[in-house]
Formats: sequence, structure tokens, C-alpha cells
Amino acid sequence: MSKENHQTPSMETLVSLCKRRGFIFQSSDIYGGYQGFFDYGPLGVELRNNIKQAWWQDFVHRRDDIVGLDSTIIMHPRTWEASGHIGGFSDPMVDCKESKLRYRADQLFIAPVKLNGELAGYVAFMEDTDAGEILKRAKKVRDAKGDKQAEIDVDALAERTEFTEVTEEQRLATLGPDASAAGTLTEPRDFNLMFETKVGPLSDSSAVSYLRPETAQGIFNNFNNIVDTARVKVPFGIAQIGKAFRNEITPRNFIFRSREFEQMEIEYFIAPDADWQQLHRDWIDACTDWLVSIGIPRDQIGEDVHPQEKLSHYSKGTTDLSFEFPHGEQELWGIACRGCFDLTQHQEFSKKSMEYFDEGRKQAGQEPFKYIPHVIEPSLGVDRTLLAVLTAAYTEDEVPNDKGKPEKRVVMKFHPRVAPYKAAVFPLLKNKPELVEAARKLYKKLQRRWPVFWDESGAIGKRYRRQDEIGTPFGITVDFDTIEKDGTVTLRDRDTTEQVRVSEADLFDYLEAKIDGE
Amino acid sequence: MSKENHQTPSMETLVSLCKRRGFIFQSSDIYGGYQGFFDYGPLGVELRNNIKQAWWQDFVHRRDDIVGLDSTIIMHPRTWEASGHIGGFSDPMVDCKESKLRYRADQLFIAPVKLNGELAGYVAFMEDTDAGEILKRAKKVRDAKGDKQAEIDVDALAERTEFTEVTEEQRLATLGPDASAAGTLTEPRDFNLMFETKVGPLSDSSAVSYLRPETAQGIFNNFNNIVDTARVKVPFGIAQIGKAFRNEITPRNFIFRSREFEQMEIEYFIAPDADWQQLHRDWIDACTDWLVSIGIPRDQIGEDVHPQEKLSHYSKGTTDLSFEFPHGEQELWGIACRGCFDLTQHQEFSKKSMEYFDEGRKQAGQEPFKYIPHVIEPSLGVDRTLLAVLTAAYTEDEVPNDKGKPEKRVVMKFHPRVAPYKAAVFPLLKNKPELVEAARKLYKKLQRRWPVFWDESGAIGKRYRRQDEIGTPFGITVDFDTIEKDGTVTLRDRDTTEQVRVSEADLFDYLEAKIDGE
Repeated sequence: MSKENHQTPSMETLVSLCKRRGFIFQSSDIYGGYQGFFDYGPLGVELRNNIKQAWWQDFVHRRDDIVGLDSTIIMHPRTWEASGHIGGFSDPMVDCKESKLRYRADQLFIAPVKLNGELAGYVAFMEDTDAGEILKRAKKVRDAKGDKQAEIDVDALAERTEFTEVTEEQRLATLGPDASAAGTLTEPRDFNLMFETKVGPLSDSSAVSYLRPETAQGIFNNFNNIVDTARVKVPFGIAQIGKAFRNEITPRNFIFRSREFEQMEIEYFIAPDADWQQLHRDWIDACTDWLVSIGIPRDQIGEDVHPQEKLSHYSKGTTDLSFEFPHGEQELWGIACRGCFDLTQHQEFSKKSMEYFDEGRKQAGQEPFKYIPHVIEPSLGVDRTLLAVLTAAYTEDEVPNDKGKPEKRVVMKFHPRVAPYKAAVFPLLKNKPELVEAARKLYKKLQRRWPVFWDESGAIGKRYRRQDEIGTPFGITVDFDTIEKDGTVTLRDRDTTEQVRVSEADLFDYLEAKIDGE
Repeated sequence: MSKENHQTPSMETLVSLCKRRGFIFQSSDIYGGYQGFFDYGPLGVELRNNIKQAWWQDFVHRRDDIVGLDSTIIMHPRTWEASGHIGGFSDPMVDCKESKLRYRADQLFIAPVKLNGELAGYVAFMEDTDAGEILKRAKKVRDAKGDKQAEIDVDALAERTEFTEVTEEQRLATLGPDASAAGTLTEPRDFNLMFETKVGPLSDSSAVSYLRPETAQGIFNNFNNIVDTARVKVPFGIAQIGKAFRNEITPRNFIFRSREFEQMEIEYFIAPDADWQQLHRDWIDACTDWLVSIGIPRDQIGEDVHPQEKLSHYSKGTTDLSFEFPHGEQELWGIACRGCFDLTQHQEFSKKSMEYFDEGRKQAGQEPFKYIPHVIEPSLGVDRTLLAVLTAAYTEDEVPNDKGKPEKRVVMKFHPRVAPYKAAVFPLLKNKPELVEAARKLYKKLQRRWPVFWDESGAIGKRYRRQDEIGTPFGITVDFDTIEKDGTVTLRDRDTTEQVRVSEADLFDYLEAKIDGE
């Protein structure tokens, strides 16, 4: 994937900017934080809402074949029996009997510790542990053997085995990541990722319910309701945006994998004999185009085709759109062809027919005209999209300061469609009432239409810079020419820093075209 | 409260229309439903989004003193210790040992059963049970006494006592609402309304966490973060929209009291010595105006001032805006003056200072300039607002049909700002390609800007009627004059059914003014 001039920022850089400027805070900060949960501050919530609204506008409002839905987070628990989540939505976990800590077995690895060429045991470590730390642990194994002079085979330490594949003998000879002696790690066992709760006044097993781990099942649940009430004909889609919850054992990489997150999902229903490969391709293209429309450069979007042998038995094919996140190239948007698995399962568990009666096919004499539709599922996380938008927008460059001297600048190059504030209005000087009054009037007028920012304090260059860092695409300065001459204002472009003078009418037209599109 | 020509529809009427037209379904319908949970269908989700966006636009984007926030549903559990929810957020409950059913004690009543003038026991019933049903239960008490001819004192049956106030003697002589013999109801005991779950891999008490029962505490939690990162000065507010959960014992009245719901809350921070009565009044007025702006008639909004003796110890005053719902006049918007209780509690529990440093007061030599702000809290439910909007919009009238004969019509008079579809586009005839093509072109152009509906099938009067029932404010018909003469279209007003001819440019201006406001 070529990236041209773009330099992916480090996660640390992004986390720090997000906290400093009020995009994202860790949840329950004052209580020491809460692992895997994040709050969106004043700028973050705007960015988030803009991403969600742009998605809804393009995939629901501007299409004729997709309708929306908002189903509950807590659903009838039979839903999760039908979907397979109660039986199978789990990660393999390993406990440390000594430290009482727990690890995901597929993220835990062991390496052999060889002393003077002889195997002396194993060390366990998480996949992102660095070589220095692994060596330190290996020295612990050596010291426990009583020979502090023995030579450790450093090459052998690079021979990793995933913990899901270790033998019992190896496991018992392994020093856990947080243990002081070998043999404290248990065999991996399954841990369901759904959050459990109890609904209703009773506290027995009949009350057990779950927070949804995905929004998709609320769509399948409502398939009949929507066919019966909305004017939809296969092929058609149902779109939903909403929170989902997964009790991740090791939430990490900032908002990339958190325990509470939000999804934007579509279930697109097609006939069983439709050309699903072509429709799948169309969806991959539509999703890519949408990412580009909110400012993700096309050359930073990759396609990752899941190999046939890794697909679920019911799946015909899945392609992920990937993105170069600060922690590496990772899945952003999964576009799966799920066959008719989900509707069939719900039909079986609910005893309600999920068959669709295809009037058009019947009239055309085409068989079958009663069928359970197949489905293409483009599934995207709001939080991951937001992280991609932040990553793509982050830019460091040099621009001249008020004195014409080049100065380092941090600028978030958000697409105007998703930028938290669309413009900032500045009176050139704070202590000239007539300037302030004219600027204020324009500000209030703009504010009827878009979120805009008011700033009257400090040198104008400094005010520009503040807006650059929060990604406001346009700076509008009201100066003496505005009030004494022709009413024009200075319009400054965030990315190029170029300035032009425009009339008020032109200003509104220009902003409208840039923000809302042609 | 005068209502002029408006007739409040019955809940049954609304529920039926909502299900039939795809506004609202019960959750998990195919599994027999799930009590206290509701899904919003294609039209419901649009109405819901429009309500949320109108609120956000007016209270966040168009004001200079309020910023937004989106905090998590699951927060650090200390939050709920500090807020008092772990200790005190409960309802008194009564169990029936025979039927195993559970009742809210403050919604359960007893009445004495007097046979030939002598007290023979009591019957228990829910507050909305009708007199006929109560008499039936009283007969059960009489029959159990063996004297089927004894006369029941009907007046005595109207003497209700709330179950929270019954004596033990009365309780043991009471026939429960679903019991066959007296004495099966337990004493009331407290039942916490928060949904509990466990976070992280461990399953012990350290993992216990809660789904938030209100969005407010996420705001208090983030007070310092926002003061530090956003440019806010007291008085200022933090606004949040998000889901909240309460394990209601008896969820009821459709979406009025459900277990999963959504709130729109503002915490507006003021100085301790501010004129809170005036600011409270300003908020009551601002909230009323906003309801009017989304189509709730001003004369259907009441004000309910909570009596001093019913306020919490820290509360200075609360006024509810009420509305005439199908099940009676009930709270819609609570506007509470909560003093500095919440921030003080979080300061105590987190050991983090919640003091605000007031630069302006310091410079003016005004004491105190370091203080914990007081707060005014306007708290509104999305679902209740939606129920109010549905109730206010529902209208039955008579309009002439295609043949000029008066016909009963159901019309949802949604304000254009919140209507799911803003307009519908109709080619006059389906089988004239040039009409369809011209209409389609206009439709696609409108769709870039607003959600609009396309309908080409059936007589034009019937098509209008379909849109009336889902509340589409404008019908646009493309006819032969459009394509053969001047390009004008027919614009039909949903409420008056009046039609005018307009040019395309005028059409866009007209819709923009009606939908987005001047």
C-alpha cells in the first residue's frame, strides 16, 4: 500500500492530542479509568455524529433500496441461542494460578529457554512483548536453575509457539508472564465474550439476558416486521447504527478494540440464485467510495480476502477493507456473504417462517419465488472509523508564523463533511467593538446552519493554529475592509493556509459546496 | 389545560398505527416479545433521529454556552456509589408466594371487603384496575367465607390504601391480585433498578458493574476533563444524548416507561450565588419553546412544580413540563435545580477536586472565585418525546376522495422538522415514461438533500392518503403541465390538502424554509 507523503502518527501522539483537545477521554477518569471504555468529549462527539450521519445519509437516505432500524441492545435471549453466540462466541483463556491474571491464549506465546545449549524450560509472553523483556524473563528461568553464568540461546527465544498449541509437558515447564515460578498457567478454556445481566424482578436463570455483541441480530429478528410494513422488495437492505458490547479479555489499541463500541451494519438481502460475487464486489466498491468521501485516502485502503479454509461453514466469502492504523494494518470494514444462515436459524428457533414471497419472480414464472433470502453484510465500527479518520487527518508540516518565520504545525486535515467545527469566525481585533459586532453577526448567521467556533483572543496566527489542531477547515476573519469597504471577509484554507477575500453570499455558497457536497 | 380541537388518541390506536406503518415494534417479536423493550422501525428511527438532531442543534450547535459529550453506558462502579444509586435507586416490591408474581408496592392498593356491613378481609389490585374487576375479586373473598348471598359494600371498595402503608394484620387478610387465597403477599422490600453485569475476565464481586440508569453521571464524571479542554466559562452546560437502562418491575404504557430508553440531558453549571430561580425559569421557557418548535402545541404543555416537602434534601426546586399522553397527563421533561450535590459527592469519592476557578470573578474581586458549581438539570427522554410527538400529531378528519365524496382520514401532522419523510414525489401516471422520468429526476435531486419517498402506484388520492398516515408534510406531483408546459409541479399540503403549482426553484426554497427553519 503506497502512502506517498503521509506519515502514520504513533498511537501515543493521537491519544495525547485526543485527550488534550477534548476528542477522547478514558472513561471514569476521576476513578482511575475503566479498562476498555472511552468517553467522547466535545470535539469527539461531533466527529462521531458527523461520521454516523454521513453513513446514514449515503446508505439510507440517498438510496432507494435500504431502510433504517433501531433495535434494542437487550433482546430476548433466544436470539443468541439462534445466532450461535451462546454456544460459540468465546475466546480461549489461560489463568495464572499465582498472579490470578488471565490471558487470551491466542495472544500468548512461549519460547524455549536453552542454557548452554540444553532446554531448561519455557517463558510465556504476550505477542507485543519486546525481545529485551523476553530475555529478562529467560534470565529468571536460568537463575532459578541455580547457574547464573549459563549462556542463554538468544536465537531460540525467537522460536514462538502460540499457547493454544503447547503440549502439557511444555505448559508445566513454562514461566508465566507475571509469575515467579514455572507451571502456574492453566490449560486454555473458553470464555464467552457476551456481557450477561438479569431482566425482570426475578433473579433466577430464567432472567438471564445479554448485551448484544453485534447489532446484526436485531435486523434478522425484525426481518418479517420490515417486509410487512416497509415497501421493500428483494434485493433490499436494512441498516442500523448502535452500541454493542464485548467483554474483551485484553481490550487494547485505544478505541480500536474496546468493550463498549458502536457499529454501523447493513444486512443486504438477495435472492438465493443472485450473482453474489458481483453484488459483493459492488458492496466492496461502495464501501471504499464512502470511506474516500469522508477523507480516507483511497491509497491507504487495502483489501484483505479471507482464505476459503478460514471461512465459517455457511459463509461464501468475506473481504475486509483494511487501513494502516498506528498499530499496523488492520481490519476496518468487514464485508461478508453469509448465505441464508441467520434467517434459517431464527426460523428454526422461533418457528416463524422467514420465507420471502417474491411477487416479481412469480409473475415472471421464475423459480423459486418463495425463499429465505441470502445476505451480504457490510459491518463497520464507528470507533474504528473515527480512529482511521484521526490517523488519516493527522499531519505535521511547517508554515510561516505571524513574523514570516517557518514554524512546525500540527494540523488535523479532516474532510469538511466530518470536521467537528466547519468554520471559525475571528474579529481581527478584540478591542474594536465595530469589528467584534460585525464578526458576531456573521458568526450567529453561520451558527444557524453549521457548528462554528468563535475566537476573539490572541494574535490571529495563533488563533488559526488552534483551529488547525482541531481540524476546522475554514477560518473567517472580519477586518477593517469588511466594515469600512466592501463587506468582504478573509477566508483562510486550513490545509493550504491560503487566504482569499469573499463576499458573504459567496461565503455561504462556498461552504455549502465544501461541507454538504455538490 | 385547554386542548381546543385536539382529541387525544387512545394508546391502542397509536400502538396499532405504529406497528402497522413500521414506526415501533415490540422487541424480539418472533420470540413472543420482550417486556419493556421496543424496536424502532424504518419510520420510527427517522422520527427518533430527527428529534435528537433538532435537540442537539438547538441546545448545542446554536448556543455558545453548551458543549456535547458522549460517555459510556458502563462506567466505573464507584460512580454509582458516589451518586447514591447503589444505596438508594430502588423500588419497594411485594411478592406473591402463591403466584410467584411480583408487584411494585407503590402501584399496589388494597380495599376493604365488607359483607353485610362487617369487615371480611381485603382485596389487592394494581392502580389501573377497574371497579368491575375489583368487585369480582371481592366476590371471591365473599365466596371463600361460605356466604354467597352476603351483600358487598361497594362504597367501601373505593377506599384505597397504598400497599406501602398497610399494617401486618391487613396484609395477612389480603387476597393478592393473582392469588386464590388470602395472605400470600409479602412485606414490601427494596429492589434495585440498576441492571448488573460483570466486566473483565474474573467473575467475582470485584467485577460487578452496572448499566447506567441515567446519562447525567457521565457528565459529572467528566466535569474536569471538559473544563480543562473546552473553552467554557461558568455559566455553561454539558449536553449528552444516550441510552439508559432501568429494570422496571412493571414497564408499561408503551414506550413511556420501558427498560431500555434514551435520554437527552443537560447539566448547566452556575455559580453558587447565581439567581437560580431566574435561570430555572429561563430553562423552563427554553424547554417549552423547543417542544413547540418540534410541533407540540403550547396549550398541551403543563407545568408541574414539585412541592417543597417532596424534594430531595439537596434539591432547591424541580418543575416538570407535563403533557397529556394517551394514559393521562404525565411528566415529559424534568427541570431540576440540584445544587452542588453531585459534584461534591464525586469529589468525596474520587478525592479529585471539583472546584472551578472563576477567573472573571477573581479579576472583579468577587468572592468566592473558587467554588463547586451548582447545577440546573433539564432531563428529557427521547422515547417520551417521541410518544408526545405521535400523540400531538395524530388527527382524524374528513377530506374529499378522488370522486369528491367526503372520506375519513387519519393524518399524522408531524412538524416538517421531525417528519420521517419530508416529501413524496409522484408521477401522475405510472405508464407514461416521460412523466416517470421527469418525476424520477426531481426525486433524485430532492433525495440528495432530504429523505423523500417515491410512489408511482395507485390513484393519486390513494397515494396522498398513504403519505398522510405516515405524516409526510408535502406531496409533489409531476403531471403533463410539468413536462409539456412550464416545468411547474403540484405541491400539496398534508394538513390543508390545498394544492399549488410551483417552479422547481421555488419548491426547494419553500421546502428549505419549512423544514430547516428561517
